[in-house]
Amino acid sequence: MHIVAIGGSDAGISAALRARELDPSADVTVVVADAYPNFSICGIPYYLSGEVGHWSNLAHRTHADLEATGMRLRLDTLATAIDVGGRRLALRESDGSETTLDYDELIVGTGALPVRPPIAGLDELGAADGVHVLHSMGDTFALERSLDRIEPSTALIVGAGYVGLEMAEGLTTRGIAVTQVEMLPEVLPTVNPELGALVHAELDRHGVTVHTSATVTAISRGTSGLHVDGAGPDGEPLAWDVDLVLVVVGVRPDTDLLVAAGARTGPRGAVVVDETMATGLPHVWAAGDCVVTHHRQLGVTYLPLGTTAHKQGRVAGENALGGQAGFAGSLGTQVVKVFDLVAARTGLREHEAAAAGFAPVSTTATPDDHKAYYPGARPIAIRITGDAGTGLLLGAQLVGPRGTETAKRVDTYATALFHGMTVDAFSELDLSYTPPLGSPWDATQLATQAWVREHLLPAQVVSRR
Amino acid sequence: MHIVAIGGSDAGISAALRARELDPSADVTVVVADAYPNFSICGIPYYLSGEVGHWSNLAHRTHADLEATGMRLRLDTLATAIDVGGRRLALRESDGSETTLDYDELIVGTGALPVRPPIAGLDELGAADGVHVLHSMGDTFALERSLDRIEPSTALIVGAGYVGLEMAEGLTTRGIAVTQVEMLPEVLPTVNPELGALVHAELDRHGVTVHTSATVTAISRGTSGLHVDGAGPDGEPLAWDVDLVLVVVGVRPDTDLLVAAGARTGPRGAVVVDETMATGLPHVWAAGDCVVTHHRQLGVTYLPLGTTAHKQGRVAGENALGGQAGFAGSLGTQVVKVFDLVAARTGLREHEAAAAGFAPVSTTATPDDHKAYYPGARPIAIRITGDAGTGLLLGAQLVGPRGTETAKRVDTYATALFHGMTVDAFSELDLSYTPPLGSPWDATQLATQAWVREHLLPAQVVSRR
Repeated sequence: MHIVAIGGSDAGISAALRARELDPSADVTVVVADAYPNFSICGIPYYLSGEVGHWSNLAHRTHADLEATGMRLRLDTLATAIDVGGRRLALRESDGSETTLDYDELIVGTGALPVRPPIAGLDELGAADGVHVLHSMGDTFALERSLDRIEPSTALIVGAGYVGLEMAEGLTTRGIAVTQVEMLPEVLPTVNPELGALVHAELDRHGVTVHTSATVTAISRGTSGLHVDGAGPDGEPLAWDVDLVLVVVGVRPDTDLLVAAGARTGPRGAVVVDETMATGLPHVWAAGDCVVTHHRQLGVTYLPLGTTAHKQGRVAGENALGGQAGFAGSLGTQVVKVFDLVAARTGLREHEAAAAGFAPVSTTATPDDHKAYYPGARPIAIRITGDAGTGLLLGAQLVGPRGTETAKRVDTYATALFHGMTVDAFSELDLSYTPPLGSPWDATQLATQAWVREHLLPAQVVSRR
Repeated sequence: MHIVAIGGSDAGISAALRARELDPSADVTVVVADAYPNFSICGIPYYLSGEVGHWSNLAHRTHADLEATGMRLRLDTLATAIDVGGRRLALRESDGSETTLDYDELIVGTGALPVRPPIAGLDELGAADGVHVLHSMGDTFALERSLDRIEPSTALIVGAGYVGLEMAEGLTTRGIAVTQVEMLPEVLPTVNPELGALVHAELDRHGVTVHTSATVTAISRGTSGLHVDGAGPDGEPLAWDVDLVLVVVGVRPDTDLLVAAGARTGPRGAVVVDETMATGLPHVWAAGDCVVTHHRQLGVTYLPLGTTAHKQGRVAGENALGGQAGFAGSLGTQVVKVFDLVAARTGLREHEAAAAGFAPVSTTATPDDHKAYYPGARPIAIRITGDAGTGLLLGAQLVGPRGTETAKRVDTYATALFHGMTVDAFSELDLSYTPPLGSPWDATQLATQAWVREHLLPAQVVSRR
């Protein structure tokens, strides 16, 4: 049995690890387009900020660790075509030579590519000009070289999603004055604007100049550095002269290989797989950012996350061996640290829930992370969304200062969502309490109780009279 | 409808709040033996350490807050007898006068009393001698007066459970040299000794002198201060001369009132109630530390915790109004901070699980709280107990440095336990990840995966071949 995984990131490596773990006699080869297998893409902003030390520390596992599991790695090797009938992969080595690789089962984890928004001049400019996208280790080294060469004192970041915010922090940490431009009305558009505003204030507090409801329309070489044109909320022209531009506005699935082999695509152009990670092409599995996401509340969608890629890869690795694993589904649980603030979410927001046929209503509460009498208590803004009809918990969004255990409080909601709890039943959970770290009703429960008081209690009180 | 609650702590106040919340027309009276309704007993160590400021800050709600909900408070009033047939309570006011109070529904939350272990001299000595127990606000003020009067430079604490450990930290914070004596082989006996040893090392690090497998046999007045005799692990005599002695070896249910009224008692002498908090006596409900605990894994036991008292009180308050609420059951979830370490548990340990008919096997792992490449990553010791037959998660114990979100990571396990998850399925949970605060598989999942690798994977690998 020869299992071949394409992709050295979360999905491919997770698949290979799972296959080797379950069957130490299986031949497992991982074809990696670059020289950086199992690198933590999510860690790139912290390398570029200077916090990580050597770039090799970003590897979840070293090359030697990976080979010690018994898998074979073929680095700097691009998979160029899949011969599905012949179970054969066409490869191109770094020296340009072409070769093939036979497989019994194939797992494709080609991941995603950074989106290049329609900005005039973007396609003509590149790393040599100090204009960057950021997704791979190659992008990382290119940006690092620009940082070393240009020694920028100013930078403009297009996009204020997760990576944009982390890079705003990272470049600020390096002493660079950052301007951040977000098309939508508030930063971190994956949470409600009222919560995004807290992140916005944190950026302000750390000297980041933020423009929301604003677009970048053109980038050009200026007399020294780069000239950027844009438009503000009312269409008024904006212009900036900066030393560096970073474009981080999201990703799209990298599906060329699978589509050429006959795979079907679904939401956002991602390759369709079922819960077993089967593509429908015989003996071809796929996982990670290149495929659709089975979401426990939304059905099939596209929601690329590293945590999901790990889970999907593990399922694919098991099933390639003949297993019966299924991906249990995503809840879109996410967290980001922005300077001293942590923002997290799981499940659905109102508009997503409404589009999926729910009757969402929400309540925002600001319980303290621990008892106020113990020093250092700070409020966490928690927005609970539940279904007005069934009372089901639909989602939770949290923004709290670093040190308030906000990142792991979202996990309690995620676990409750996984099991389809109602908002009211959330109070039944036996959560931990000690005054320096919590409350007799945890902050998570104080928030769900606020929802219940607003949306459920009035009817309960009336019916009792 | 006149609802009377006895007890101004978690159970009584929660019941009264719930009743007023659900029926703003209900008359609700709370009879409180002392002058401190709704005080946070769990906060006492932090008041005595000097961290809280004024003692009145320990109130979850002020007297005015409570009265604003529409409940009536009768402070310094002791309920001396329940006339069940006549639905009438006998009361003694602080001036010694006797009176009665009629009720339609009664909720008893008399709580617990500190256990006084068999130590020679203990019954003859008291606050005037610098010998203290610690459970109520009265005990707190007595101890505070001793601290002010004696200005102790040394103290001996009998017991190294939650309160004993918190007081060891609290008195150390005040500059007092603390000796701590624990009868069992390791401190914090509610977790496995290997994890308790981490807490023991933290006590050592902060200068607390700890004796385990040791008992205190006698306390007497010395020439200056107190003389304490004890015995070490092999029965060898131990002796200490200290300025202050604090005995904190647990609590027992305060059931005299209910037992005199005809209530039945169960485990540890606690009053038997069903999941609705009904005592079996007509129109008499009970909740909190005076009653048995319905445990989701163990059935009926006695496990007094403030979180549980809140939940039980809420159920009792709703049902006293004619509601249909049920206590969903405890999992014994607990957490304690000891200096810079946090120890938590939920569910069962091996011996508890074995006694309950499970086939428990355990694995301890020490995953980092977040990705090692990001500064400040520190290991959390996590011991997972699961059932060898069914694979069910049975319990989790965690010890991690403060700042590793250990207190809220235990909540993820508690939520999984609430829903009867298997150890293996825990990896399906969509938990949050960002490098500064987690891992693609959260530390909680890395620990369950270590259990799976030790106890499940070998059979999976064999069966595949």
